[in-house]
Amino acid sequence: MPMKPEAAARAVAPVPADSGLSFERWCAQQAQRAEAALGRVLPPADAPPARLHEAMRYAVLGGGKRVRPLLVYAAGEAAGAPVEALDAAGAAVELIHAYSLVHDDMPCMDDDALRRGKPTVHVAYGEATAMLVGDALQALAFEAVCAALEAGAPADGVARMSAELARAAGSLGMAGGQAIDLDSVGRRLDLAALEDMHRRKTGAMLRVSVRLGALCGPPAAPERIEALTRYGEAVGLAFQVVDDILDVEGDAVTLGKTAGKDSANDKPTYVSLLGVAESRRMADALLEQARAALAPLGPGARRLRELAELIVLRSS
Amino acid sequence: MPMKPEAAARAVAPVPADSGLSFERWCAQQAQRAEAALGRVLPPADAPPARLHEAMRYAVLGGGKRVRPLLVYAAGEAAGAPVEALDAAGAAVELIHAYSLVHDDMPCMDDDALRRGKPTVHVAYGEATAMLVGDALQALAFEAVCAALEAGAPADGVARMSAELARAAGSLGMAGGQAIDLDSVGRRLDLAALEDMHRRKTGAMLRVSVRLGALCGPPAAPERIEALTRYGEAVGLAFQVVDDILDVEGDAVTLGKTAGKDSANDKPTYVSLLGVAESRRMADALLEQARAALAPLGPGARRLRELAELIVLRSS
Repeated sequence: MPMKPEAAARAVAPVPADSGLSFERWCAQQAQRAEAALGRVLPPADAPPARLHEAMRYAVLGGGKRVRPLLVYAAGEAAGAPVEALDAAGAAVELIHAYSLVHDDMPCMDDDALRRGKPTVHVAYGEATAMLVGDALQALAFEAVCAALEAGAPADGVARMSAELARAAGSLGMAGGQAIDLDSVGRRLDLAALEDMHRRKTGAMLRVSVRLGALCGPPAAPERIEALTRYGEAVGLAFQVVDDILDVEGDAVTLGKTAGKDSANDKPTYVSLLGVAESRRMADALLEQARAALAPLGPGARRLRELAELIVLRSS
Repeated sequence: MPMKPEAAARAVAPVPADSGLSFERWCAQQAQRAEAALGRVLPPADAPPARLHEAMRYAVLGGGKRVRPLLVYAAGEAAGAPVEALDAAGAAVELIHAYSLVHDDMPCMDDDALRRGKPTVHVAYGEATAMLVGDALQALAFEAVCAALEAGAPADGVARMSAELARAAGSLGMAGGQAIDLDSVGRRLDLAALEDMHRRKTGAMLRVSVRLGALCGPPAAPERIEALTRYGEAVGLAFQVVDDILDVEGDAVTLGKTAGKDSANDKPTYVSLLGVAESRRMADALLEQARAALAPLGPGARRLRELAELIVLRSS
């Protein structure tokens, strides 16, 4: 997820000298932590049923930007949460994301043959296995989130995390957004309907990533959790607006997928409704909202601010 | 799930006069409770996305024997658990069961057009919606189980319940059993491999139903939980043995599905490996194991004993 040169220039003040790691280094380190946590929570590829476990590992490991775990780590850092609990929560949100990609790619949904440059799971392992891979990854996400309990998160926090994750993934969140998306092909949505769809489809999981990170920490004042939630909502929506911009502006190489795919599929997007310039203004406004939400949280929220900038100013 | 006349004669001593409801009445009452709990936990059919919610309700409500919630209620009764917490846990296990049926029926899996006498979800709503219905029902199960917290179950119990449910549903449980089942068509499994498959595919969810009921109660001695677990394992396996017997003995009317379907599909079954008489002896032995496991639990375990008898001695 590299930043464009002009975008980097628009980012906020450089890292103060006393704050340790550069943002790039922090991202690389946390993404590596997330990968290791996923590797541990996934059953070994030779545990029976071996073919299913091999396919689950194929679907999850060795790819992806790990945006959701990065949000978990960043929010957890702001909340003073034990990092092992964040490993658990980060693995959980990424497993939900990974399962949704496996099912989305299937012939009855988007029918995609490539994902992150590799054959999709149903191409590599068959449709029936792909279905079970997605189903099993979703279950594993809830097993993972509960592991935050052993890692020092409070018991009622873990029960709440599990419930919030379920709600974000379910029919009022991600799965519901996908249902609306299915129904929207070839129809004209207005801006409110488009926003509603994206709040569910991508926004809910990004928002809950931030909340889970916070809930791993010691009980916090409700205003802090609300501030983080506002941040998560702004970033969640911005993520999709930028995706839509990149879909028309990007090229297949930096994007890792076919550019212009959404417009070719006659899917409503921010760009088709607002145009590129207005969409970019909207993304910038959402970045400002995200920053404003973080203001009361002090320097501990630094990684969250940097992540918001990365999400809005990225070039792929 | 009526009992055969000769089977009823083999059941244990009649209900003592002081113990309230007859078993039939208890079953009807608890199944109604389970239905009401499911109706509450499922979003209303007119909540957006309405088509998805309508399809979710179609998949879950108004059918099924509710064996898993009955096991939850019976185990909870033995453990002294608050009944509202059992509503939550019972809804959770039934939602997992319902999602697995929706996905199993899809063309890439068993390709079934009828379920409980109605068109399957993908026939009624299309494949993409059926996929999302299953995905959303699984998420809802984990939301439901966490509602046991508000209903008086202890917080660490709820986190543990959620983790156990996830494990029973996932690649080491139900989804893993289905993966083994897929690979077994046309192959000859030995008895140990068949048992391993069924312990995962149906056994894990029946076993966890019993455990969840127990975990809704106040902290219990480990021996009590272990006794209930042994009971759940015996009943879980017996359920499948009896299913295999009924598949060859039953007729389509009492069974609600085509008799002989498994053998026609060249799937290995207990009957194909052991014959009917030996399979029946195995089911009876498992019933004895289940009864023996309950012996130390006293009269509070009565419904569990009655359920084991119903499961083994049923005629459909």
